[in-house]
Amino acid sequence: MGVWLEGRALAEKIKQEVKEEVEHFREKTNQVPGLIGILVGENKSSQIYLRSKEKASQGLGIASQILTLPANTEARALKARIAELNQQEDVDGILVQLPLPGHLKAHDIICAISPEKDVDGFHPFNLGSLLANEEGLKPCTPMGIIELLRYNRVPLEGKEVVVIGRSLIVGKPLAAMMTNENATVTICHSRTKDLAAVAARADILVAAMGKPAFVKPEFVKESAVVIDVGINQLADAARVRDLFGEDEKREKDLAEKGYTVVGDVDPRAVERAAAMTPVPGGVGLLTVAMLMKNTLEAFKRRRRFEP
Amino acid sequence: MGVWLEGRALAEKIKQEVKEEVEHFREKTNQVPGLIGILVGENKSSQIYLRSKEKASQGLGIASQILTLPANTEARALKARIAELNQQEDVDGILVQLPLPGHLKAHDIICAISPEKDVDGFHPFNLGSLLANEEGLKPCTPMGIIELLRYNRVPLEGKEVVVIGRSLIVGKPLAAMMTNENATVTICHSRTKDLAAVAARADILVAAMGKPAFVKPEFVKESAVVIDVGINQLADAARVRDLFGEDEKREKDLAEKGYTVVGDVDPRAVERAAAMTPVPGGVGLLTVAMLMKNTLEAFKRRRRFEP
Repeated sequence: MGVWLEGRALAEKIKQEVKEEVEHFREKTNQVPGLIGILVGENKSSQIYLRSKEKASQGLGIASQILTLPANTEARALKARIAELNQQEDVDGILVQLPLPGHLKAHDIICAISPEKDVDGFHPFNLGSLLANEEGLKPCTPMGIIELLRYNRVPLEGKEVVVIGRSLIVGKPLAAMMTNENATVTICHSRTKDLAAVAARADILVAAMGKPAFVKPEFVKESAVVIDVGINQLADAARVRDLFGEDEKREKDLAEKGYTVVGDVDPRAVERAAAMTPVPGGVGLLTVAMLMKNTLEAFKRRRRFEP
Repeated sequence: MGVWLEGRALAEKIKQEVKEEVEHFREKTNQVPGLIGILVGENKSSQIYLRSKEKASQGLGIASQILTLPANTEARALKARIAELNQQEDVDGILVQLPLPGHLKAHDIICAISPEKDVDGFHPFNLGSLLANEEGLKPCTPMGIIELLRYNRVPLEGKEVVVIGRSLIVGKPLAAMMTNENATVTICHSRTKDLAAVAARADILVAAMGKPAFVKPEFVKESAVVIDVGINQLADAARVRDLFGEDEKREKDLAEKGYTVVGDVDPRAVERAAAMTPVPGGVGLLTVAMLMKNTLEAFKRRRRFEP
């Protein structure tokens, strides 16, 4: 039976460090990092995510604002708005909440953000710098995963890492980071044959494909470390009971919200694993913490502040 | 016993296509693609490589020139020169021959090239676009490998690909391209444990680490396709005889040049493989052909020519 790798303590530690550094710079220079989150349209989850980022920033002394634009905003107008923010001296970080309405292409919009203000780390220049193992802003979730493994003294060098999912937000940049950390990395996806067998090679298995409890216990090698990046709403009560057994918290979720949040990994996989991140309470908490760290990082680099 | 996947026929085909298209645009617009190769210092191999690129370009009707700068050129001066070339209307492609003298950092210099003129595909913006599976100029050798596999009807989807070597010139971009082609990709390197066993999983094995005949026949799964990217000079006559047996051409190389060119794969691996690229005469020939193709591509995009 493995241990649960909780994300909270590390997330709090990182946020505390950011807060202290922001405070330090505020006292020393009378400047604080500025973060703008752009929301196009009225996607409910996007609103919630962006609000929580804003709240977290403000709690750390970062000047944060949400810029809300109508769902029918044209690409040209959105890029013009971003160009203004690129020029704005007191803005260090710009993030565009995804997904965007169907008429806007995420890649096209993200390319409009100045790489030095791209705190999500999704701009091609930053992704390419990551591939090249050069300096740059790095995507928050993969960075959070690396930090969580380091914090828990899980070595990466020479380990077999299997990443399931090839998104630009998690899978691909994480595979690059893990390669840079000297792991032997395999990246799997929907076209991978015999995924269970490939996954079972992993010393460290990362599930990031967005399918509730898709990774079964038998996908997990005995004593592997399992990182569950999925955040899925599961409404099927019978399935929830099958996965979690008698679980008061899950029952309450189902009764109150009509769903409970589950990861991409069957929670019973923890029995084979050496350690596994819970959902919720694992990697998800680190994403916002790393965004805060990236914002501080962008602030320091742009304004050429030494610590 | 596998077949040898020669690169020549495809390389000639690609160059012929480029030549015809260049000619077509010349007739139609009175413009031809312009390519500048920058050589800093007097590295003998670099001179030879660059000269062969210049010759190939000129043979296809591309206006090509080598800009030679002294070995002690400062980064600032080199970047200023590149900035001029970025502005120059008749220059579509700029490449900086690597390696650079020790005081110059390749990443820093390559970042000075306008991504739209970066015909080597090494600029972070282009590498990031490749990772994102978006349009952009792609590194020549990995692109040549993909083309060679396509040309020989080797399917990639769902295949296990193992890439040995994580250079920015071959291993990393190739892994990204193979992932985009729906292969299941593992990237190995000097810190990989039990490399032989990992390599032996591969349906398609790519050796790109620059160690003469390092990949032994037993690294190769029965009926795998083996792509040998290495170009190494081997001077040890006993070793050459061990690898190639009685081989008139190799003996002549040793006698005349003091070395023979060998790949990263033991040539006897062809006996287990379904197919394998020879060295010389395999992937190497495609690199220059793809550079020509990239130059034409950059020309068309920059000058907004439709075919």
